Amino acid sequence: MSSGLLLYTSPTPNGHKVSVFLEELKAAYGTHYDVHKIDISKNTQKEPWFIKLNPNGRIPVLVDRNRNNFSVFESAAILLYLQQHYDKENKFAFHRDNDPDNYSEMLQWIFFAHGGVGPMQGQAHHFNKYAPEDIPYGKKRYTEETKRLYGVLEIRLQDRDYLAGPERGVYSLADLNVAPWIRYHKNAAIETLDEWPRLKDWFDRVVGRPQFQAGIDVP
Amino acid sequence: MSSGLLLYTSPTPNGHKVSVFLEELKAAYGTHYDVHKIDISKNTQKEPWFIKLNPNGRIPVLVDRNRNNFSVFESAAILLYLQQHYDKENKFAFHRDNDPDNYSEMLQWIFFAHGGVGPMQGQAHHFNKYAPEDIPYGKKRYTEETKRLYGVLEIRLQDRDYLAGPERGVYSLADLNVAPWIRYHKNAAIETLDEWPRLKDWFDRVVGRPQFQAGIDVP
Repeated sequence: MSSGLLLYTSPTPNGHKVSVFLEELKAAYGTHYDVHKIDISKNTQKEPWFIKLNPNGRIPVLVDRNRNNFSVFESAAILLYLQQHYDKENKFAFHRDNDPDNYSEMLQWIFFAHGGVGPMQGQAHHFNKYAPEDIPYGKKRYTEETKRLYGVLEIRLQDRDYLAGPERGVYSLADLNVAPWIRYHKNAAIETLDEWPRLKDWFDRVVGRPQFQAGIDVP
Repeated sequence: MSSGLLLYTSPTPNGHKVSVFLEELKAAYGTHYDVHKIDISKNTQKEPWFIKLNPNGRIPVLVDRNRNNFSVFESAAILLYLQQHYDKENKFAFHRDNDPDNYSEMLQWIFFAHGGVGPMQGQAHHFNKYAPEDIPYGKKRYTEETKRLYGVLEIRLQDRDYLAGPERGVYSLADLNVAPWIRYHKNAAIETLDEWPRLKDWFDRVVGRPQFQAGIDVP
């Protein structure tokens, strides 16, 4: 009999957010999870059985067989769900009730990535790599916006090691939620991170975690 | 002396999410708030004093003078902050600890809007109304994606009155977080909502609230 957590995913930045966190939970608590690979090149995520799990037809989706097959879509909502139910010692987030300001700052950076870096860099990938037509306006618009957003992270990291938390910050969901996107910067026609030295240091720090390395090998 | 909450905002969908919720809190609890209008046509949100409040240089921003001038950016993070500190009876959200599944579903729909409807419809507005060049590929790509996302909401609302909550759902942050975007559908070259009858009914239900009407008049 398999364990409780089942992740439907593909090797994409949004998929990696969740597999990285699952690897963190595994290292910290021994949490086990199973993986069901979705072949997005075959549009498996648009099939009726998948639409029942996520009407948006996108990976990742988590099904928690420990909790009545409760299913969760949207990468950041999955992170917050896993943190609530499986990170019992709050190792990867700030306590909502006892530490509300750091909790809110963590959420602010999660939403910044979810509404900014993810969708805008995703468009940069599209126009630079996947669009069937060459659209210079689209390439320029989204590569420049992605660079601007990296610059916002650079401002935040000016005197910090991590995006949220007291003093120089503490590694949390805020970091692992956005690092998998930064990792794909070349797809957005951003060759190096040299323009943002603090972001680069932070990225090396986050990506250097063995759990991060294990997470990006999933599936 | 002014009261505690100060909202920096402009008349945009992301601004309206927060002013609608503040009007809900005012009606439910008598919560007072002040408004500082930001003229985004003059790029006031890119001035150094504003970048200190939000390094992303975007409205809305909330400053809570009741809580040591704590500042919050990202519209959805502001909603969750206000809900935690000012909606003491949980009238607009599901209790994280006592009702975790409905709480998660609410978050899933908030993230769906924050990473999908908002940024993609925003791009549709750009290519259809604001871009200095006529880019048919961009117009088509983002209007079609916005329509697809409306179709996802239509699936969710098939047997529901509201996006989250038990049975037919309960009005919550999930609804007021996305309705201000739907309200601007014409800017995305979507003339009517007739293609999505449940979405249209839901929209009329949400927008018909006097607090919604008061919120979209701010600033």
